[in-house]
Amino acid sequence: MKCLGAFTLVLATSISLNAQNKHKPLIIAEQGSFAVGGTTIIEPGSFDLNNSLKPQGQTFHGDHAYTFYQIPIKARKYPLVFLHGAGQSKKTWETTPDGREGFQNIFLRRRFPVYLIDQPRRGDAGKSSVSAAITPTPDEQFWFTQFRIGNYPDYFPDVQFPKDSASLEQFFRQMTPNTGSFDSNIISDAVSRLFDKIGEGILVTHSQGGGPGWFTAIKNDKVKAVVAYEPYSSFLFPQGELPQPIKSTGLFGELKGEEIPLADFLKLTKIPIVIYYGDNIAKGPTNVWNMDHWRSGLEMARIWATTINKHGGDATVVHLPEFGIKGNTHFPFSDLNNIQVADELSKWLKKKGLDK
Amino acid sequence: MKCLGAFTLVLATSISLNAQNKHKPLIIAEQGSFAVGGTTIIEPGSFDLNNSLKPQGQTFHGDHAYTFYQIPIKARKYPLVFLHGAGQSKKTWETTPDGREGFQNIFLRRRFPVYLIDQPRRGDAGKSSVSAAITPTPDEQFWFTQFRIGNYPDYFPDVQFPKDSASLEQFFRQMTPNTGSFDSNIISDAVSRLFDKIGEGILVTHSQGGGPGWFTAIKNDKVKAVVAYEPYSSFLFPQGELPQPIKSTGLFGELKGEEIPLADFLKLTKIPIVIYYGDNIAKGPTNVWNMDHWRSGLEMARIWATTINKHGGDATVVHLPEFGIKGNTHFPFSDLNNIQVADELSKWLKKKGLDK
Repeated sequence: MKCLGAFTLVLATSISLNAQNKHKPLIIAEQGSFAVGGTTIIEPGSFDLNNSLKPQGQTFHGDHAYTFYQIPIKARKYPLVFLHGAGQSKKTWETTPDGREGFQNIFLRRRFPVYLIDQPRRGDAGKSSVSAAITPTPDEQFWFTQFRIGNYPDYFPDVQFPKDSASLEQFFRQMTPNTGSFDSNIISDAVSRLFDKIGEGILVTHSQGGGPGWFTAIKNDKVKAVVAYEPYSSFLFPQGELPQPIKSTGLFGELKGEEIPLADFLKLTKIPIVIYYGDNIAKGPTNVWNMDHWRSGLEMARIWATTINKHGGDATVVHLPEFGIKGNTHFPFSDLNNIQVADELSKWLKKKGLDK
Repeated sequence: MKCLGAFTLVLATSISLNAQNKHKPLIIAEQGSFAVGGTTIIEPGSFDLNNSLKPQGQTFHGDHAYTFYQIPIKARKYPLVFLHGAGQSKKTWETTPDGREGFQNIFLRRRFPVYLIDQPRRGDAGKSSVSAAITPTPDEQFWFTQFRIGNYPDYFPDVQFPKDSASLEQFFRQMTPNTGSFDSNIISDAVSRLFDKIGEGILVTHSQGGGPGWFTAIKNDKVKAVVAYEPYSSFLFPQGELPQPIKSTGLFGELKGEEIPLADFLKLTKIPIVIYYGDNIAKGPTNVWNMDHWRSGLEMARIWATTINKHGGDATVVHLPEFGIKGNTHFPFSDLNNIQVADELSKWLKKKGLDK
């Protein structure tokens, strides 16, 4: 009883501290932004000052990432580097659609340096070395469903997403288009250059960011761990070990792994990796396409982690509802219970000695 | 002598505090981001969950602004709301190309709440209700010249811009394209909505941001002052009071004012306005096109301020070199002497009682 009492006290203190922290000032030792990585186009010829609108001899810098960073006082050793998913920007990690603190502030309060990326050809890193056509496409009810807020117009009954219209509007407005085609190689090059600049750290990816995330870790051993929220595609397997594709009624069809050289794959076995999935993912094949899409992702993640671990690695797949954390959408880090989701990550970082 | 001694002491303390402040932590009471304003497209028809990639019945939210804000502890009354210029994003106000603090940090240290905007159809506010084609165009030597860093490849001898290649690369990479056509009305609508949300404040614009800046002040009386760095076009005159166009060898040709109803114009006479221009602007007509372009801007600004003041307003045009502040480019707020440029603004805000 005494032991239980002490535990309860610690828990209560911890909750109370969290509640207080929410309104405590952030003490930032340093903050700023910069571009990193990228390519340069040089138009042949000579620049003519008197015909300066002609391209000859002029340059175009593009395909860099943009990052805004904050380093709190008494910072922990490893920064968290956040890479958004498809159609998103660094906004993903900032204020939530209903105005609460996102992972940016939550992990600053937990004394991690935080780097938020706009990947090449997105947001403030919009200069792209390839052309793009941008067309406004009414598709938000699709995304509502695809991102497992519910089956539009119905919210999932237990969903950890605010049900007021203002929050949904903020959620829709946080999407922002590609200004050039998605290119995993260009993105991972730029993020790898970021790690060259800032040193060792932890890469946190979301969804489509998962693919360039794995490639960044392969390219740069300063990536000391990868945390992936709901990756779907780009699960990388050694040549000859590709699993069978997973059939799905999801709108992206069957899910295939991707073959890479064994030497590259083995680099992913040298660092701890954790992958999180939220709720309302089917347990087995179903015609409810959004739930089945993510079922295929979760199943492939499990096959992938098993393959990593068979080769001596340390990969864990956490399906949050199995740990009592219910109702999460495709965006667990901004859901109503994102403090609880952050607590799970903090526990994992501590367990792996990554929070020193 | 005694009086002078006291003055010198105050000055020395102030400079010393500035130097210290540069490395002091920022204490932020609150920070976050949100979308504001914007339009909504609704595709006629009904959303069909089983054909969810069809647009029927789906929405598209676009044309909003994005803002990242920070409120320091012991904040002054009026926030500074920063609106970037052409081809730029909120990055304009963040870390300078050579890695020093920009106006974001400088004015946080001076206890102003700071709101940095990505205007509609730019950066993290990329969702546009109109289509756009984005093409990589080698034109950076033009911008180097147009923005008065020098006459490429030559730097102006006294220019307040770092001359190393890494800084120039950062400067080029901070540009980011439109994801829909520039629309002063849409931008000023969104910025006006921001003032509705946050209350009274001071609008700080750069270059092309000047136009939507004036319209925001006309639309919303919560704009208590406007500070415009190097506006070029969109000088607004009452009907019947349009001045003669100013001829120029600048690449935008002759500069015209813009007519608006007197009632709208008079709203700009109700608030203090200051306009700053940097150095290397021609004193009279010249064939050096960049110096002549900005000559026409400065001349029109002076005619405009005279017109405002004739109608009972309070507009001041500050040509920085005339006050001993030399070498500034089109980006005085990120130039090497940006602390000095910020000091000028602080003095003006104090003089107008806007720094309480």
